[in-house]
Amino acid sequence: MTKQQALDLLFEKNTARQALNMAGTLMHWDAATLSVPEKSISARGAAMGWLSGEGFKRFIAPDTIEAIETLESHSSELSDYERAMARELGRSYRKLKAVPPEEFQAFSALQTEAQSVWEKAREKCDYDMMLPYYEKLFAYQRKLCDWYGYEKHPYDALLDDYEKGATVEMLDGFFSALREKIVPLLKDIMEKGEQPKEIKGTFDLEKQRAMMPWLTEFTGYDRSRGKVGEVEHPFCITVSRNDVRITTKYHKESLLSSVYSIIHECGHAIYEQNMLEEMERYAIADCASMGMHESQSRLYENMIGRSRTFAGRLLPQLKDKFDFFSDWDTDMLYRAINIARPSLIRIEADELTYSLHIMVRYELEKGIITGDIKVSDLPGLWSDKYNEIIGLRPNNLADGVLQDVHWSMGAAGYFPSYAVGTAYGAQMMNTIKKSVDVDAAIAKEDLSPVTGWLCENVHKQGALLTPDELLKKATGESFNPKYYVDYLSEKFTDLYL
Amino acid sequence: MTKQQALDLLFEKNTARQALNMAGTLMHWDAATLSVPEKSISARGAAMGWLSGEGFKRFIAPDTIEAIETLESHSSELSDYERAMARELGRSYRKLKAVPPEEFQAFSALQTEAQSVWEKAREKCDYDMMLPYYEKLFAYQRKLCDWYGYEKHPYDALLDDYEKGATVEMLDGFFSALREKIVPLLKDIMEKGEQPKEIKGTFDLEKQRAMMPWLTEFTGYDRSRGKVGEVEHPFCITVSRNDVRITTKYHKESLLSSVYSIIHECGHAIYEQNMLEEMERYAIADCASMGMHESQSRLYENMIGRSRTFAGRLLPQLKDKFDFFSDWDTDMLYRAINIARPSLIRIEADELTYSLHIMVRYELEKGIITGDIKVSDLPGLWSDKYNEIIGLRPNNLADGVLQDVHWSMGAAGYFPSYAVGTAYGAQMMNTIKKSVDVDAAIAKEDLSPVTGWLCENVHKQGALLTPDELLKKATGESFNPKYYVDYLSEKFTDLYL
Repeated sequence: MTKQQALDLLFEKNTARQALNMAGTLMHWDAATLSVPEKSISARGAAMGWLSGEGFKRFIAPDTIEAIETLESHSSELSDYERAMARELGRSYRKLKAVPPEEFQAFSALQTEAQSVWEKAREKCDYDMMLPYYEKLFAYQRKLCDWYGYEKHPYDALLDDYEKGATVEMLDGFFSALREKIVPLLKDIMEKGEQPKEIKGTFDLEKQRAMMPWLTEFTGYDRSRGKVGEVEHPFCITVSRNDVRITTKYHKESLLSSVYSIIHECGHAIYEQNMLEEMERYAIADCASMGMHESQSRLYENMIGRSRTFAGRLLPQLKDKFDFFSDWDTDMLYRAINIARPSLIRIEADELTYSLHIMVRYELEKGIITGDIKVSDLPGLWSDKYNEIIGLRPNNLADGVLQDVHWSMGAAGYFPSYAVGTAYGAQMMNTIKKSVDVDAAIAKEDLSPVTGWLCENVHKQGALLTPDELLKKATGESFNPKYYVDYLSEKFTDLYL
Repeated sequence: MTKQQALDLLFEKNTARQALNMAGTLMHWDAATLSVPEKSISARGAAMGWLSGEGFKRFIAPDTIEAIETLESHSSELSDYERAMARELGRSYRKLKAVPPEEFQAFSALQTEAQSVWEKAREKCDYDMMLPYYEKLFAYQRKLCDWYGYEKHPYDALLDDYEKGATVEMLDGFFSALREKIVPLLKDIMEKGEQPKEIKGTFDLEKQRAMMPWLTEFTGYDRSRGKVGEVEHPFCITVSRNDVRITTKYHKESLLSSVYSIIHECGHAIYEQNMLEEMERYAIADCASMGMHESQSRLYENMIGRSRTFAGRLLPQLKDKFDFFSDWDTDMLYRAINIARPSLIRIEADELTYSLHIMVRYELEKGIITGDIKVSDLPGLWSDKYNEIIGLRPNNLADGVLQDVHWSMGAAGYFPSYAVGTAYGAQMMNTIKKSVDVDAAIAKEDLSPVTGWLCENVHKQGALLTPDELLKKATGESFNPKYYVDYLSEKFTDLYL
């Protein structure tokens, strides 16, 4: 196979992948935004299964790796795009091939069963129901470490699967910095801080919906190259580069919920909208990593959307629509959108405590992978760690060890990418602030200088660089948790102490 | 290849076809019900092109015909489903293979170009712009007749492509019956009949929307196994057997438009919903023909929805929502929903005149295929035939020969299926009335005896039988235009004379 033949073959496979992905994406959108007829679920599942199986078959075919190896053997002649394509495809291919097919099949069947058992177990708060599944799923994850291979720590193999290049070494550093500064800060706040007035009431759904255009325009998400839908659990999906859709859910009792889910999903969507179309044939018009995607959503949601300056822009919008805010000032709103306190549920956690929830999971997963922790001991250890780190013990397993779906999917190593991504964002913002007056941009309701920096340094890079390469190039150094810890410390000390 | 291998191969291909169709269908739904971002159209087109190309490639592969021929050679051992699958697939395969690939490619390119030229030509009322395209497109259709082959008349080859088994012999009989009875009836009505009071006003869109549940429930369309959307040009699509969706458009100025588009699409949807899931793997959970599909939609729309009894049920619904009807009675409404008069635009034609519009096109197409008519003479002949048959001449080409998209798509032989389908419905209704009190069913707002008959005799048959076989089995005779002509004559004589 010549280099050109290898390229052509991969381009052709990529065309197929794009078409199959678009089909799957639109099926997903359709199911999430409309209530799909109950009785049609199995036929739809069969079709989606066929389409994704077809994508898998095409990718895993022997000519794929032949083409990748051909490119690798011409490494010095490759353009940046070609090299990145070979790297990304090679990485995925070798991970898939590392797993014995019969083990993968058994795992897939187990996953499906475990997820439905998990739903019942969570409802009944019955850990014994889940225990045999967790035992098998984690045993598989331990085998995965060997199949994938690792240099220093077995957990590294799993971490890398979700966040390219993440290691125990890196995450131990990250979480100990949080443990050192943020855990005591939270304790201080609970002891000495005064909780501000909360936004409590019922908020007309139509008026909430009327906020959407302003919110999306504020972030810079281009609605003319996408669509905004309503769903039960908000997400962002890419149908194609010029059709990036976000979703939200409006809650009568929780005004902040839709405001911040919109800003969050806009952060994801802007990343997708700004990727380069010319990278698509190389299959690298994609995020650098899951953490990098989360860095964008949380940067917009928290570092911009929960800033004092943004509170000053948001308040007139709220006053205009809801009488509730008639006697509010910017400072009150700034405090209300930044309430920090111990809580039990990760997905409802505030900006300050979110990564602490992840820390609990990281430490438990690491122990299970090394064998230092027994799966049967998870409920007790979960409670102890929540108490130690966050200062609360769950009253029941549904608010404790059974709250997340991830482990029932056999996903270990996934959680850290959420927290690391948030910290990437803080590191970027530190650099951005050297050349951009971010507060002035927010005050003018024109984020283009911020988005411009992100676009150049992150969005347009697609999957060309690894997260580490990207951070180094964009901020001058590898991942450094200092910026995130400093940012949280300053912001919440100022707010509460 | 053994018989079982042939079946397995075709089942597998059919699974792929279903998945690819579902993907394409949902893409179409998505584009029609949402306004898809302008800039995303090309990426979406590329993906849809890949998906449909993939379906085509799989079908046209040599192992398909090998499997079909294997089944044909075991003809006597086949079940009814297997035999119908072999017949339907063999029919499609041989039609596709009959066309030289380079000719097909040239035609496809021409089609795309011609359609965009047609849009402009219609706007400018410029036949000269279209003439070279029509020349080439009809030349291709003439070649198609030879490639497909025919027994008696070349046009038969094209007619059969849209309406299985339709021939010039059959259609000449049909249209001459119309010419003999309906053309003079229309003239009589125009001379002696009195036009009733029309439904004219503006009708609140939300109130129109509120009619939808009653209308769909009246027909028996099961919304829990589908969905109702709003689009520019209403259609019905089948995502899967339990997800059959209809669409409508609400017009402020035309209340009847959405009422009858809903009933019409429900007729299509009920056919799709009642097909048997067990036929799906045999690829025969499909309509017997396009005309058969149209027979169902028009039977519900016209023979039920424009009946006097239905007017009696509809009126209280309308009175409840629109003050306009406060002084209306059933007879006034019955007359208003059945206004018949000469018109120029086929898609806006009333029940009485619809098939006369088709007659014009049938006679012109037939003449072009035989060579008796020159493509350059179409505008004049169109005007003459409209004058002769309907009693009006178009003032411009957009209301005349350039009104339909079909010829610019190179589709000749398509139009007759609309009219024939309508007549199938009348033949069925004649049989239904022998065992079912249709008016009583309508009066009770419970169409189940009517739908039950259609379900047994038409819907559940899928593509098991040809239209002729189906009609014979269901009504005891082959297609007989008498029932349609009699039905129209009686109804409109009673209404107007």
